[in-house]
Amino acid sequence: MMQLQSMQRKGGHYLWWPFTQHSLVPEDQITVIDARVGDNFMIYKNANDSDIIMPQFDACASWWTQGPDLALQLELARQVSYASGRFGHVMLPENVYEPALQCAEFLIESIGKDWASRVYYSDNGSTAVEIAIKMAFRKYLHDHQLVTETDSCKNVLCLKVLALRGSYHGDTLGAQDAQAPSAYTGFLQQPWYEGRGLFLDPPHVFMHNRKWHIDIPKSYIELNKSMTSVVKLSFQARSELFDKGRDSSELAALYKEFIRTNMCACVENCEHLAALIIEPVIHGAGGMTLIDPLFQRILVNECKRKKIPVIFDEVFAGCWRLGVQTCIQHLGCTPDIGCYSKLLTGGVVPLAVTLASSGIFESFKGDSKLLALLHGHSYSGHAIGCQAALTALQWLSDPNTNPNLLSSTMTLAELWDPARVSELSAHPEVQRVIALGTVFALELKASASESGYGSLLSRGIVQALREDQVYTRPLGNVIYFMCGPTTPPATCTKLLDKLSRQLDVFTARKHANANHACG
Amino acid sequence: MMQLQSMQRKGGHYLWWPFTQHSLVPEDQITVIDARVGDNFMIYKNANDSDIIMPQFDACASWWTQGPDLALQLELARQVSYASGRFGHVMLPENVYEPALQCAEFLIESIGKDWASRVYYSDNGSTAVEIAIKMAFRKYLHDHQLVTETDSCKNVLCLKVLALRGSYHGDTLGAQDAQAPSAYTGFLQQPWYEGRGLFLDPPHVFMHNRKWHIDIPKSYIELNKSMTSVVKLSFQARSELFDKGRDSSELAALYKEFIRTNMCACVENCEHLAALIIEPVIHGAGGMTLIDPLFQRILVNECKRKKIPVIFDEVFAGCWRLGVQTCIQHLGCTPDIGCYSKLLTGGVVPLAVTLASSGIFESFKGDSKLLALLHGHSYSGHAIGCQAALTALQWLSDPNTNPNLLSSTMTLAELWDPARVSELSAHPEVQRVIALGTVFALELKASASESGYGSLLSRGIVQALREDQVYTRPLGNVIYFMCGPTTPPATCTKLLDKLSRQLDVFTARKHANANHACG
Repeated sequence: MMQLQSMQRKGGHYLWWPFTQHSLVPEDQITVIDARVGDNFMIYKNANDSDIIMPQFDACASWWTQGPDLALQLELARQVSYASGRFGHVMLPENVYEPALQCAEFLIESIGKDWASRVYYSDNGSTAVEIAIKMAFRKYLHDHQLVTETDSCKNVLCLKVLALRGSYHGDTLGAQDAQAPSAYTGFLQQPWYEGRGLFLDPPHVFMHNRKWHIDIPKSYIELNKSMTSVVKLSFQARSELFDKGRDSSELAALYKEFIRTNMCACVENCEHLAALIIEPVIHGAGGMTLIDPLFQRILVNECKRKKIPVIFDEVFAGCWRLGVQTCIQHLGCTPDIGCYSKLLTGGVVPLAVTLASSGIFESFKGDSKLLALLHGHSYSGHAIGCQAALTALQWLSDPNTNPNLLSSTMTLAELWDPARVSELSAHPEVQRVIALGTVFALELKASASESGYGSLLSRGIVQALREDQVYTRPLGNVIYFMCGPTTPPATCTKLLDKLSRQLDVFTARKHANANHACG
Repeated sequence: MMQLQSMQRKGGHYLWWPFTQHSLVPEDQITVIDARVGDNFMIYKNANDSDIIMPQFDACASWWTQGPDLALQLELARQVSYASGRFGHVMLPENVYEPALQCAEFLIESIGKDWASRVYYSDNGSTAVEIAIKMAFRKYLHDHQLVTETDSCKNVLCLKVLALRGSYHGDTLGAQDAQAPSAYTGFLQQPWYEGRGLFLDPPHVFMHNRKWHIDIPKSYIELNKSMTSVVKLSFQARSELFDKGRDSSELAALYKEFIRTNMCACVENCEHLAALIIEPVIHGAGGMTLIDPLFQRILVNECKRKKIPVIFDEVFAGCWRLGVQTCIQHLGCTPDIGCYSKLLTGGVVPLAVTLASSGIFESFKGDSKLLALLHGHSYSGHAIGCQAALTALQWLSDPNTNPNLLSSTMTLAELWDPARVSELSAHPEVQRVIALGTVFALELKASASESGYGSLLSRGIVQALREDQVYTRPLGNVIYFMCGPTTPPATCTKLLDKLSRQLDVFTARKHANANHACG
């Protein structure tokens, strides 16, 4: 108990937690983690004045990084030990060593199959995105004959990204500038932020009242009122959304018109859209919103037509997070550049890769070092991370070791029981739910003042879930569960049942408060 | 041999090396690294048609990260294994676990002693700097009553950093914008770069012809011609540079005048200098230039007087790299924010910390999550990195385990034999040398077209050193050696002797070419 109390006190004293308002974290609510065992934290608790250690399901998948069941966790520990003993770290430029090479080879042959030819290593999603943007811009300048402009001309070139409102690409300035304004980019957060993009409002998809709906922004409707009256905006099954047959629908035509109109306006304004960057299928940190895959596919194809390099930021979505090895499988189109991190190492150490096509790579060749991509980090391609990544990716991509992997489709089995998901979508306090791959998310109905990233509305439910051995951390009024690609579906079902119970408590308390207020 | 050839070919096929012009790397010059043993790579070589593995001293300290001798390397492997097995990774916000806590506590009690109160974890130097800038700006806005400005006012506030020309702070855009224009920031590298700072030319220090010299930029001399004629600009011993008695010298007065004049001009221009960021003592990637510590101390004190938060970017210089645990010891003044990475984990996995004073921390407190520092990376404070950092820092800071550490001064013994350094400084092909802590650097004399980061002048020497079992990688026409804090001085002496021999070969070849050209 002494140790527990001292760790809580010291943690609150020395650490500065990311994304955390310290004023809102009472000391006794700090979680003391003694170990992790597969999907579970083992946490210290003080119950009835005695020290206990109990499991708590890590429903944040340790900030979206975790893949392993216990068997893979132990295998990763072995591989990390091996690489640490043999290599420690050896520097990458102009060198080659087994873990960095084998990991690169595996990535090119799997995620990068048929489009990528090179692997650029860095340390996290944000740096992978900064690298991707630099790559895309160079390729754009090449393809549009802007490389040889004189320096004075370069100064007036306005290069922008094309991106979607609500997408998140990391917290370093270059990655931030590629994002639309949000809670993360305010003046008090980074006064240098400027939002250098054409940011389009994407159509959102969600389940409500047992049906899937597409929410089309007003601006689309204003563009073509006659068309919007005929398009189909609801579905019985999620799978219909991913059906490539939709490419010839009226909705596809509307999307195309919206995208072209906005891109043209930008070009008329003398701005160069020099890269498309998207989070495929789900916007993660932006609130776990599902974007219509049809819209993203059309956007990619439009950009390819105009020789605008396409970046898939799969830092969150890739490596089995959304039920597939890469969302290329969901979208049915390939990028020129792809960013991967988080689950890449199975969830043990930081490592990121930016995959690039040969066309991207060639645009950095020349007779001078100054033309090379002059971006790097000392631990680029560190042996420990590469060894872990190779092990985790092979393990998770093999039906013999990943019990959830269906060899027929090479997708994960449905982890979130559809009947329960449907049931939750009809709960009176629920605005929307989504479920795909290892992710389930639920947005609570909220007034304007209670919604958004700063919202504390879900705090009671989150606290109760933690007491009920489920560790969650909300995104404002959005509560999400994230499991590993190997988590048994039965475990996910238990999570949904626990949430359902807490929602009922939340509802009852709300009504009681309302009655109390009336009385 | 098959394996060697296949690794060279595959490495050149799949990898995209950072900071490398692939066109300039022939396949047979790719180094194949089989393992690392303490300070040495073990490399595959093909000699007389047979496969051999031979040691090559890693004189880049694997891109400036390495600390361990073989004993520490093995201990780090054990600790990494332990943390990997016990924790894998567990997320940080609102949580506490032993490695993250103990590492933070150690840092606050050592590097942060008497000034820092909080540890913010991230993944590499660049992210540590982005975080530091966000911290500094918030504190500045608080201290200068600018937080409560309305949004429209905020849009016209021009916040800049004060920084030194030639300093390097990382490759993500926020870190880049805090640097003066350089080879790393050109339009083709990142079209969004803008250099948002007042960049001062610092006085450089170097040894030439057996004496230490201070090179004062012209702009200082123009400022006060009468004074510049009387200041003392050369020294016999490096230690004189670090003598605090210089604070009352004429040179100190000149520095102060220069700094104040430039800062005033900025303020008159309605620009806010909202942070000072420096690499203490040596500019690393900028070409291994030693900056007069007197100048940096005066700069820090001027900023503190004006309530401008001070950032020490010790990513390269900290953690024993320059012979001391922190360059605070060299400069004799403390920052508000400090950035550490590279050697932090002893050189095994990426991890970075941004240390902050309590004043900095408090400026993010409030009743809303939106006021918190909303910057983070999934692996922030990952257990494996923290465990390695704790182990490495304790090991290197203990005279019982670090054979080079002098317990009397808590500095490293002189690693680079002063007589040999002096000798090299008098070589006819040498422009300058510096030696401090684990770093020795030598700049070759070069014409304008042969100098700078893109220079290939040193290529022959570097290649010959690699053949002679010393792995180096130059910064243009600057050749440097970097060892670990535990490397025996006798090993360093051998490196200098090898360099000396190659310099003679270089000189002889140059003369032969000149004679050939004449004839």
